[in-house]
Amino acid sequence: MIYGALEAGGTKMVLAAADDDLRILDRISIPTGRPEDTVPRIADYFRQQRIDALGVGSFGPLDLNPQSPTYGYITKTPKAGWRDYPLLPTLLDALRVPGMLDTDVNAAALWEAERGAARGARNCVYVTVGTGIGAGVYCEGNLVHGLMHPEWGHMLAVPHPDDPMPRGVCPYHDGCLEGLASGPSMEKRWGRPAWDLPAEHPAWQIEAYYLAQLCVTALMTVSPEKILLGGGVMHQAQLFPLIRKETVRLLNGYLPCVTDGEDLIRPPVGWPDSGLMGSLLLAQRAWKKNGRDG
Amino acid sequence: MIYGALEAGGTKMVLAAADDDLRILDRISIPTGRPEDTVPRIADYFRQQRIDALGVGSFGPLDLNPQSPTYGYITKTPKAGWRDYPLLPTLLDALRVPGMLDTDVNAAALWEAERGAARGARNCVYVTVGTGIGAGVYCEGNLVHGLMHPEWGHMLAVPHPDDPMPRGVCPYHDGCLEGLASGPSMEKRWGRPAWDLPAEHPAWQIEAYYLAQLCVTALMTVSPEKILLGGGVMHQAQLFPLIRKETVRLLNGYLPCVTDGEDLIRPPVGWPDSGLMGSLLLAQRAWKKNGRDG
Repeated sequence: MIYGALEAGGTKMVLAAADDDLRILDRISIPTGRPEDTVPRIADYFRQQRIDALGVGSFGPLDLNPQSPTYGYITKTPKAGWRDYPLLPTLLDALRVPGMLDTDVNAAALWEAERGAARGARNCVYVTVGTGIGAGVYCEGNLVHGLMHPEWGHMLAVPHPDDPMPRGVCPYHDGCLEGLASGPSMEKRWGRPAWDLPAEHPAWQIEAYYLAQLCVTALMTVSPEKILLGGGVMHQAQLFPLIRKETVRLLNGYLPCVTDGEDLIRPPVGWPDSGLMGSLLLAQRAWKKNGRDG
Repeated sequence: MIYGALEAGGTKMVLAAADDDLRILDRISIPTGRPEDTVPRIADYFRQQRIDALGVGSFGPLDLNPQSPTYGYITKTPKAGWRDYPLLPTLLDALRVPGMLDTDVNAAALWEAERGAARGARNCVYVTVGTGIGAGVYCEGNLVHGLMHPEWGHMLAVPHPDDPMPRGVCPYHDGCLEGLASGPSMEKRWGRPAWDLPAEHPAWQIEAYYLAQLCVTALMTVSPEKILLGGGVMHQAQLFPLIRKETVRLLNGYLPCVTDGEDLIRPPVGWPDSGLMGSLLLAQRAWKKNGRDG
């Protein structure tokens, strides 16, 4: 058995083939051009690798409703050429293998829950804080989607009293999490990129306040056993203790099981490959579900 | 087959027995006294009804982790006598039948998802807005719990600019949803009970703003196909259109599938019995899982 994984991002596509034990046999990365150029290259690669099943973790928004006529499409993205693009159907038509698509963050949550930092947990939330903010949710064996799929970056947040830019930068929402706490919002607020801000800069306390609100919302809505925070902004080692402390302060003793947040709020172990590895698990699920009939 | 259902509330216990088709054969309601008085009465009732399996939807917090030594206990409630009380183990010991416990709101979500207003949906959120605010979450056949269980009432909300009481009444949290939008918070804010406020009172616009934030958070975190709003406060017919309008305004076009919220934000059809009926479904699940061995 050879499983194929595609992690489809807005700037690059990461492709890999792995064996039955999910050991990577080969991987490449290509820039995300227009679909008419990029998708045939992806199909060629997987044909050469002779994959038996494909898993895709993709940027969104996606149509993940199996009953929908546009199931497996990228839907209303602003990215040129990819709007309403039938990503999964095109690849499966070309490759004639079973396949499964989910959001990149749901794929990452799947990997972390089944093989990574949340192994053994019934529920976990995987969050990426970078150019945008997104999260995947794993609940008792399932990845969560329904009307659409989770969009954690666009939940509303209470502005920090010292935030000089309390409305944020999201073109849709005054004061949503992505507009207040993504990498670009930090750069806009402080006039230089997040990685260039020293560890003692007040920026980090404000950032921790927003990400702690995300942790509180996670606890109140889906009660995860692990909240895994990854993505470029989380490279700042000083953030984890600040976020844990802020989360405990905001909870104010309401959830007695959260004492210091040390076990709860963690880095993902698979980052930056959790999404790619999770896509292999999607391929495995697709094979188990459809392999024998497909 | 006779299924027993207990909806355990802070002021009353509702007990029912039903046949295989979940038709109620008998029901009673008793006040919630101290457990040493109340629980033997509950056990007597179910013995008389000769039930084969028991489902319990209870006030919380609850320990719902099957691996825990205190599985099935009511945990840190302030309610006299019930703190750290082994509700499910005591009843199952007395009755010698298989049983299952969940939160009252999760039981209600289960009923609404499988038989009620969200029938056919993969995911739904059932919300009660009354003395407190709580919600149950149903995702692809499972009720959501993990570290603990959802506690939607304690998510933070952005204060309405015209709210004369923007910090709310929750003893734990400045500005959480329950502190800002429960029945008691409305009464404190306006000096009279919610049911006594006329439909054109500004209270309802502010209430709708808070409940719309809950709807937005639901959409962003678990992407439900239905958000069902029940509980005493939701008796005000004017609230639904206001909440839908506010939700659409806050989303600001970000989720194109939400046009007017008419299909999405609904009253539960089983209210006020969704929790009791959901407890019958829990009894059925317990029987399917353990009946033959237990």
